[in-house]
Amino acid sequence: MRRLGVGMIGYAFMGAAHSQAWRTAPHVFDLPLDPEMVVLCGRDGEAAKAAAQRLGWGEAQTVWRTLIGRDDVQLIDVCTPGDSHAEIAIAALDAGQHVLCEKPLANTVAEAEAMAAAAARASEHGVRSMIGFNYRRVPAIALARQLVPRLGRLRHVRATYLQDWLVDPAFPLTWRLEREHAGSGALGDLGAHIVDLAQYLTGELVTGVSGLTTTFVGERPRPDGTGQGPVTVDDATLFTARLGPGIVASFEATRFASGRKNGLRIELNGEHGSLAFDLERLNELEFHDHTQDAQTAGFRRILVTEPTDPYVSAWWPPGHVLGWEHTFTHEVADLVNAISAGADPAPSFADGLQVQRVLDAVQDSAEHESRWTAVTAA
Amino acid sequence: MRRLGVGMIGYAFMGAAHSQAWRTAPHVFDLPLDPEMVVLCGRDGEAAKAAAQRLGWGEAQTVWRTLIGRDDVQLIDVCTPGDSHAEIAIAALDAGQHVLCEKPLANTVAEAEAMAAAAARASEHGVRSMIGFNYRRVPAIALARQLVPRLGRLRHVRATYLQDWLVDPAFPLTWRLEREHAGSGALGDLGAHIVDLAQYLTGELVTGVSGLTTTFVGERPRPDGTGQGPVTVDDATLFTARLGPGIVASFEATRFASGRKNGLRIELNGEHGSLAFDLERLNELEFHDHTQDAQTAGFRRILVTEPTDPYVSAWWPPGHVLGWEHTFTHEVADLVNAISAGADPAPSFADGLQVQRVLDAVQDSAEHESRWTAVTAA
Amino acid sequence: MRRLGVGMIGYAFMGAAHSQAWRTAPHVFDLPLDPEMVVLCGRDGEAAKAAAQRLGWGEAQTVWRTLIGRDDVQLIDVCTPGDSHAEIAIAALDAGQHVLCEKPLANTVAEAEAMAAAAARASEHGVRSMIGFNYRRVPAIALARQLVPRLGRLRHVRATYLQDWLVDPAFPLTWRLEREHAGSGALGDLGAHIVDLAQYLTGELVTGVSGLTTTFVGERPRPDGTGQGPVTVDDATLFTARLGPGIVASFEATRFASGRKNGLRIELNGEHGSLAFDLERLNELEFHDHTQDAQTAGFRRILVTEPTDPYVSAWWPPGHVLGWEHTFTHEVADLVNAISAGADPAPSFADGLQVQRVLDAVQDSAEHESRWTAVTAA
Amino acid sequence: MRRLGVGMIGYAFMGAAHSQAWRTAPHVFDLPLDPEMVVLCGRDGEAAKAAAQRLGWGEAQTVWRTLIGRDDVQLIDVCTPGDSHAEIAIAALDAGQHVLCEKPLANTVAEAEAMAAAAARASEHGVRSMIGFNYRRVPAIALARQLVPRLGRLRHVRATYLQDWLVDPAFPLTWRLEREHAGSGALGDLGAHIVDLAQYLTGELVTGVSGLTTTFVGERPRPDGTGQGPVTVDDATLFTARLGPGIVASFEATRFASGRKNGLRIELNGEHGSLAFDLERLNELEFHDHTQDAQTAGFRRILVTEPTDPYVSAWWPPGHVLGWEHTFTHEVADLVNAISAGADPAPSFADGLQVQRVLDAVQDSAEHESRWTAVTAA
Repeated sequence: MRRLGVGMIGYAFMGAAHSQAWRTAPHVFDLPLDPEMVVLCGRDGEAAKAAAQRLGWGEAQTVWRTLIGRDDVQLIDVCTPGDSHAEIAIAALDAGQHVLCEKPLANTVAEAEAMAAAAARASEHGVRSMIGFNYRRVPAIALARQLVPRLGRLRHVRATYLQDWLVDPAFPLTWRLEREHAGSGALGDLGAHIVDLAQYLTGELVTGVSGLTTTFVGERPRPDGTGQGPVTVDDATLFTARLGPGIVASFEATRFASGRKNGLRIELNGEHGSLAFDLERLNELEFHDHTQDAQTAGFRRILVTEPTDPYVSAWWPPGHVLGWEHTFTHEVADLVNAISAGADPAPSFADGLQVQRVLDAVQDSAEHESRWTAVTAA
Repeated sequence: MRRLGVGMIGYAFMGAAHSQAWRTAPHVFDLPLDPEMVVLCGRDGEAAKAAAQRLGWGEAQTVWRTLIGRDDVQLIDVCTPGDSHAEIAIAALDAGQHVLCEKPLANTVAEAEAMAAAAARASEHGVRSMIGFNYRRVPAIALARQLVPRLGRLRHVRATYLQDWLVDPAFPLTWRLEREHAGSGALGDLGAHIVDLAQYLTGELVTGVSGLTTTFVGERPRPDGTGQGPVTVDDATLFTARLGPGIVASFEATRFASGRKNGLRIELNGEHGSLAFDLERLNELEFHDHTQDAQTAGFRRILVTEPTDPYVSAWWPPGHVLGWEHTFTHEVADLVNAISAGADPAPSFADGLQVQRVLDAVQDSAEHESRWTAVTAA
Repeated sequence: MRRLGVGMIGYAFMGAAHSQAWRTAPHVFDLPLDPEMVVLCGRDGEAAKAAAQRLGWGEAQTVWRTLIGRDDVQLIDVCTPGDSHAEIAIAALDAGQHVLCEKPLANTVAEAEAMAAAAARASEHGVRSMIGFNYRRVPAIALARQLVPRLGRLRHVRATYLQDWLVDPAFPLTWRLEREHAGSGALGDLGAHIVDLAQYLTGELVTGVSGLTTTFVGERPRPDGTGQGPVTVDDATLFTARLGPGIVASFEATRFASGRKNGLRIELNGEHGSLAFDLERLNELEFHDHTQDAQTAGFRRILVTEPTDPYVSAWWPPGHVLGWEHTFTHEVADLVNAISAGADPAPSFADGLQVQRVLDAVQDSAEHESRWTAVTAA
Repeated sequence: MRRLGVGMIGYAFMGAAHSQAWRTAPHVFDLPLDPEMVVLCGRDGEAAKAAAQRLGWGEAQTVWRTLIGRDDVQLIDVCTPGDSHAEIAIAALDAGQHVLCEKPLANTVAEAEAMAAAAARASEHGVRSMIGFNYRRVPAIALARQLVPRLGRLRHVRATYLQDWLVDPAFPLTWRLEREHAGSGALGDLGAHIVDLAQYLTGELVTGVSGLTTTFVGERPRPDGTGQGPVTVDDATLFTARLGPGIVASFEATRFASGRKNGLRIELNGEHGSLAFDLERLNELEFHDHTQDAQTAGFRRILVTEPTDPYVSAWWPPGHVLGWEHTFTHEVADLVNAISAGADPAPSFADGLQVQRVLDAVQDSAEHESRWTAVTAA
């Protein structure tokens, strides 16, 4: 079987999750190419070496540019913070390497546009790119996508992504709370996921938004012990939106919802039914079929572990649930299949750019008294 | 025991619920006055007579003004559509009769202001008034109010009121879908409840909003069979808001959420904990105590049926649940107690006016591209 | 309309619930007879008088025999402890008065047999009797009964009734914990309900059982302060059973399940589907349709508040939930309808006897090392 | 780091799960030994070779005895049907190889006793053995074990393991439905898990049982198309039991509970609280603290994904849920740690034998009219 050399840049939370995916996918799915975990790259040499060994990579490097154009690396997996995505991804694509890039695509629309353009150019030469909106690969979400046509004309999307890790004002001022590194706070980190899911599930684009952002705790202790520093991103963002011709939607992303750990919830209401999903119970999908007689209608809890469900046949028998990390295994499997088939995988950099435009419009609206702000299609 | 003669105007859905409350309260609670169901009033004589008999009222009248100032009627219970609230309530108050008025207080802020002014004048002469935001009297909501201080500084309110009775485009064009009678659609009917609950539970007022309204089905069949007529109210309304010094909130009211029958849900997140409530499970309250160790923390499902819970000791042993109608029984019991004690009951007409101002601001914002619209305190 | 004079004996917990039912039923349902709450009877004269006034009865008596055969009392409602059921009910039936008798029918099979015989005799003269297994009148249970045929051949019943009010060893030794008054403990009080529901829902009778009983706390403080006294009933009873030709069942009744307040849960599994019910969420029924495609099958949460649901059209619109007490209102409404129609209502005293035989067999099995014990049909 | 050569016998469902565990554990946990997946063994040479390649094993063999005593294989992982466990495991132990054996330990008590004896002998020479009751390694179960002391004196265990894959009578007669291969049906396959969990969580042994077994569908089509053949194992088994000095318990294992896919549920009630777990939601644990004030007490849903929870720190941040297969990764990690530390891991073969005795007693009781049957400690 033809090999596919992979080089991964960044090895923190996302890097560990991607590594588990690269290690596992070939043993679970029938892949047409054989992924080889060639090299891991991180700035701290010792740490990178330890990570490579622990996570199963063949070698460690400290300068990402050394991975670009390497003969034995056909795919670059970008797991760094958002401010370096554009530079790395564009370099790799231009060098003819496929790219898997973590979300959000970039910290600014301008960067995202450049990336989408590079991806489009590369695609003409058979070089593929994908953005890591991994929640599209939760089996329950993929099943929901299949069921959406049964909802008929869509009316409502209701999406929240609730976490609580910033509730304590003593939590330190990490790079995620600084605009120059993170671009934004809850908006980009959490909001990006729910905007993508809303667009993916409905098959419609956000056309306009009205946003509201807030920073509850304005100063936090610097990690280096040099006193307090200013938080320059949003702690929470709420926005209303319109999608396609007739859907109204509400979105909320926050790191201050005490007790909600990973509360990505999305509900769709259509004239013939509804769907609801909660990431904390990711093996389940709730489905209401409004065409059934009222007496026995109701939201049914579907345990999405049947062999006929998306991705599930590769795993275990009914009722044997999957976890969060499996979304990445599905992601790399789909990516490898697309590369082998000579097709562009989804979600594309253009999809990532579209999400970025929505986030940008939300920010803009929030800075202008929540006034309605149009979003143009990418 | 001193009697309290009651006259009720209107006898449809709300009238039936209020009647059940007046019949039941004296047998369940120790009331200081003895309510007597003197007279029911409705425009159709035959129907009013039948309703009076069925619902347990002593007599029936067809002209509401005949109830005003009657010696044997000390309290007027207003269960009519919103466009007649102001005229009836003000007449009764000016005649020295206590008033219980269904929500929303009125169809316009101007009417609501006149009503609040009349209520203030009347109060100086010992005449009491109350607006029927009955959900304050769900035991779980009343318990939530008691627990709010344990949440510490509040950050988020998340409130929806989801119904689905308009999903079918063949549903007829009733008065509730015409602005001249109903004032607004989901906004006034459902939104009023969640705005009141948000303000009641947090103890803070809404200071500004950004709104979005939509009408999914623009025309519906007239009930008299004369073809289609225009729907002139909102089918759904979404808005973001700020309350008090630092709370951000999202609200949604809709009649198009397939499968959601009475989906009034409200969640509060504070720095020390969270509370969540769902009207479809009204005997339950979810409470997360964020000050406990993380390993055993989580949302606990409190079954609010303990004798120490608000209102519950009058009813049944633990685990024997109450229903929706009990909120009205609690409402009239509290009202009778307040009258006897010479105190103004809550929620007041001023509270109803404040909610009206919020709804008005939402409407105004929605008509001006969702721009941020301030709400002044009543 | 013809009146139906009612006399109620006993006025504690059950008496209060029945009173609420008699007060309410005529105002909610279209009854063919007009129930009149003539007389309440209790041994303590002052207390009975106060109860009569509070609960809405015309007068109070202290000797139950004075109600038997009274011209103005056509129906005797028996709400006393089980040891007096037989004497009162038989006297009333023999005097030509209809009888509503609380469960369990009696404390012994012999008494229950005598009562069933009296009921059969009385029925020949148009005198009706009913045992108060009120949970048959939960709308969700009545709906479940309608849906059972859709389950196909039944395989499993799984029923528990879990409470926790005896967990504290300092809870006093009330009459409910003494065999001479209560007959048994959790078995008769809670087990009776789930045995009746299992037989009612499946349409099959229990044919044999294997039982296990236990008393966790053997001594408790006497209420009169004279030290500790022995608990002579079961704190918890578990049993397995067979129903009809091929159903296996498990039952558990306990007062020691910390945190379970009124945890009556029953699940039925058939070859074409399943049903599940929980009394703490009594407006809901869970239904799994196994004939649907596996991908969208799952337990659906039916909110049993549709106008087409049993009893519901008399009450409120969809989503406006009912409470525990409504079961009694439904019970007396059905009883009044049966009396007017000249039909024997269900559940009958014979049904109550059958349940008694099952409980007796459980006790017998438990006293003989859980050996299988057959139950003969009543 | 010292290597630990592993040979796995059997490569079906359990073999795939174990392989995923061996591949993953070294990359997630800090293991003191380096497991090497040396050889997979299966009777069909071609299939075994394909499986070895797919699952990540170095080579394939067809005769299990060739793995016994191999220098490069220090640990034998037994994933075959129950009728070969004893022979393989004893041979390996006697050859000085550590053994991980899938549950149930054996098909008969006699075999299990021989295995436990072999394990005891081997332990004296530093050779370790473990039975694969993997659900002990669900983080929520491990956390429950830690919380059990907070429940005080235990009163109740309520355990079910509900599946539905045999509901269809056309499902073929596989080896799992033949007594000579499988030993028993639902009893050994599902019942073994819940008996082990009950004993593990309470820290008490089952001392006696009363059992009931049933076979709903007596004949099924043979897989080879030669007509119908008899089902010789139980489709469902129910039993009551006593544990330790004062706990009563109910158990049910079935493959006929329509809609229940992997419904392993266990609840413990003690005088100071309760715990409840459901394998279909394996990242959650419900905990009721009965010592808290009644007004805010209730079952709390603990999301067992905190870094302080058992096994979790090796994985992802709070709210990022794990799946069913992770239990095996935890299992092999604990086993490797025990081997390195020179300690006997749990659960031991003696634990497996004890479970086998309970299952045996249930079978015996069921064959003797459910009479109470004592279980002696292993």
